[in-house]
Amino acid sequence: MTDPVLAAQGADVLAASRVLRCASGESKDAALRAAAGALLDHRAAILEANAADVAAARDAKLADSAIDRLGLDEDRLVAMSRGLCDVAMLADPVGEVVDGSVRPNGLRVERVRVPLGVVGVIYENRPNVTSDAAGLCLKAGNAAFLRGSASAQRSNTAVTAAIREGVDAAGLPADAVSLVADTSHDTAVEFMRLDGVIDCLIPRGGRALLAAMREHATVPYVLDGDGNCHVYVDADADLQMARRIVVNAKTSRPGVCNAAETLLVHRDVAASLLPALREAMPEVELRADEATRALVAASPASEEDWSTEYLDLVLAVRVVDSLDEAIAHVARYSSGHSEAIVTASVAAADRWVREVDAAAVVVNASTRFVDGGELGLGAEVGISTQKLHARGPMGLRELTSVRWVLRGEGHTR
Amino acid sequence: MTDPVLAAQGADVLAASRVLRCASGESKDAALRAAAGALLDHRAAILEANAADVAAARDAKLADSAIDRLGLDEDRLVAMSRGLCDVAMLADPVGEVVDGSVRPNGLRVERVRVPLGVVGVIYENRPNVTSDAAGLCLKAGNAAFLRGSASAQRSNTAVTAAIREGVDAAGLPADAVSLVADTSHDTAVEFMRLDGVIDCLIPRGGRALLAAMREHATVPYVLDGDGNCHVYVDADADLQMARRIVVNAKTSRPGVCNAAETLLVHRDVAASLLPALREAMPEVELRADEATRALVAASPASEEDWSTEYLDLVLAVRVVDSLDEAIAHVARYSSGHSEAIVTASVAAADRWVREVDAAAVVVNASTRFVDGGELGLGAEVGISTQKLHARGPMGLRELTSVRWVLRGEGHTR
Repeated sequence: MTDPVLAAQGADVLAASRVLRCASGESKDAALRAAAGALLDHRAAILEANAADVAAARDAKLADSAIDRLGLDEDRLVAMSRGLCDVAMLADPVGEVVDGSVRPNGLRVERVRVPLGVVGVIYENRPNVTSDAAGLCLKAGNAAFLRGSASAQRSNTAVTAAIREGVDAAGLPADAVSLVADTSHDTAVEFMRLDGVIDCLIPRGGRALLAAMREHATVPYVLDGDGNCHVYVDADADLQMARRIVVNAKTSRPGVCNAAETLLVHRDVAASLLPALREAMPEVELRADEATRALVAASPASEEDWSTEYLDLVLAVRVVDSLDEAIAHVARYSSGHSEAIVTASVAAADRWVREVDAAAVVVNASTRFVDGGELGLGAEVGISTQKLHARGPMGLRELTSVRWVLRGEGHTR
Repeated sequence: MTDPVLAAQGADVLAASRVLRCASGESKDAALRAAAGALLDHRAAILEANAADVAAARDAKLADSAIDRLGLDEDRLVAMSRGLCDVAMLADPVGEVVDGSVRPNGLRVERVRVPLGVVGVIYENRPNVTSDAAGLCLKAGNAAFLRGSASAQRSNTAVTAAIREGVDAAGLPADAVSLVADTSHDTAVEFMRLDGVIDCLIPRGGRALLAAMREHATVPYVLDGDGNCHVYVDADADLQMARRIVVNAKTSRPGVCNAAETLLVHRDVAASLLPALREAMPEVELRADEATRALVAASPASEEDWSTEYLDLVLAVRVVDSLDEAIAHVARYSSGHSEAIVTASVAAADRWVREVDAAAVVVNASTRFVDGGELGLGAEVGISTQKLHARGPMGLRELTSVRWVLRGEGHTR
């Protein structure tokens, strides 16, 4: 049985989604700008609520990194507000005619981009996700049904109240941005089972959340998976380029999913590349196979290292004898996120692109480019490592569906 | 724990999918044609196996309609074989560059259509689904992992053996078409939970199967849902056209999901349309509201009738006062499949297209056109009533994914 409060809220969100679905681009953008203004107008209340969350998190001895993600300040609030204005500037995906034709019998057929309806988001303790997700959902014509973590509930409630005020001021239903009030584990599971209300559920969290989704969710969902990303340096790579790309992929932001976790190096260039790399990023701990350790200082890699997404300044390193061996290693250990090759060989690049199975395959560039902003999506709600609906960075387009419009003149079969 | 036999078979199918993924269009088409030939070569064995299934189904007192779906004969086998040849003639969806651009920093970005990988299909007792599904999966570069019903297992085994012989003869791995041997309920659930093997699971069956999928599946799936389809005849419709469309939508093939189940009629035209309709399709049982029953003979409709997909020569009928009331009725009761309006008014047609939320909205044509063949997809694996990945008829394109290809010249962030 669904909690009656959650069920009633779901009905309200669904009703709001039906208004949003037909809202003009102008009205949606007005709502986004009004919400951006309201976030600033209510900054005192939001920061006060956030301070209470942070104090409670300290008392509960949450990890420093978690408290850092939870904390808001004037700058972060301004960034959240600006984020909403930026989304208002993007093109409206709704109404795009994706394709169309006239059938031999004269029936006119189009596929037209439409909102999904109600987008559910389950997320952990970053209050900025509240406004980021709400903004993208609104722009794509969806109602945002948000379920944050207990530790951020005061902050999320204050942020949501401000956004709702903006949405209402623009003449759209405030329930188009709704936050689940009860943050208990039970309601998270019930939330995943709101069939007929939630059209798409997006989890933004760790492995435990994804596992709970697979186990319990009955509504359609898209998974934002792990990034165990590889860089393979081929026999005839430009080694200067290789060094720059590896350093960038590993160190520019090690805590994100598109950072590299394993380096594969062709035996022919290992002796030239590895010492230079060791020198170029002394802060990175290497966990390596024997061939690598014969060339540079590194601790031994265990089988587990090949599967680990460190999200830290740690890199697994392995020397391979061939492109085939590199492709086989990736096929075995990749999480299907982003896989890069550095090579001067057209043949090697072509094989990598054809044979490696990942959301993004990258030739002579850093894995760090696999990001909605870098790829021109404007903003992203996550990066999908599954193959249904969305693969790779998910932007506004991935928050829409397509439907068929048929126009006849009395056509019958 | 997954059954070790199923897990081992899953590993074999996954390995085969990696070969299929990179197979040329020529080799896939050769496999399809060879499989088509093998179906005919082995017709005696297939028909013998099917006769045993049919005899067992009779002994088990299966319904006549189920036995009819189960039975094969020379004609049906030829149609299955021809179906594989027809799929070979379709354009290969794999490799299509969906879109692409050069980023301001010179990074070249493309989205390219690729196979899903392993497509699982769970289906009921129609042996033709074995070859239809296998053919579409192969053409789109996927391995087909099939789980049929116990009652059709002898037939499915014989059909699969023939197709595998054809695939092998074309130099592709036979495991690209694999049938689960154990048809117990437990393996169906285990099949839905083959994470890391099945990239997309497609159920072809009734509500019980869909409910089991929602409850148990942990792999990504697309649901082929109900079709509670409406036809609304507006105040200024051409009534001749309306009559033809309603008769076609209801009676041309009442047992399929795109048949109409409820007729909504504007009050202004009810007295002219309904008696003519009653006369035009005397074989159809009407279940109607009071206003309708004042005009034609019909039994009273209960609340349940508005939600029922009859799949039979039964039509629910309701008189409405306005387009608004028709749209509200559809919003409440529609299963989101196909919704048609008959109208001469541009304004009414525009509102219907904008406001009705369904996989297909239809103006002045029969709902029966919402079909992969009619819409130019060549063939369909089902009709999705959910909004993720695929909506409406699913053809070869919906059996693919898209991935990102990034090409740089040493690009770093």
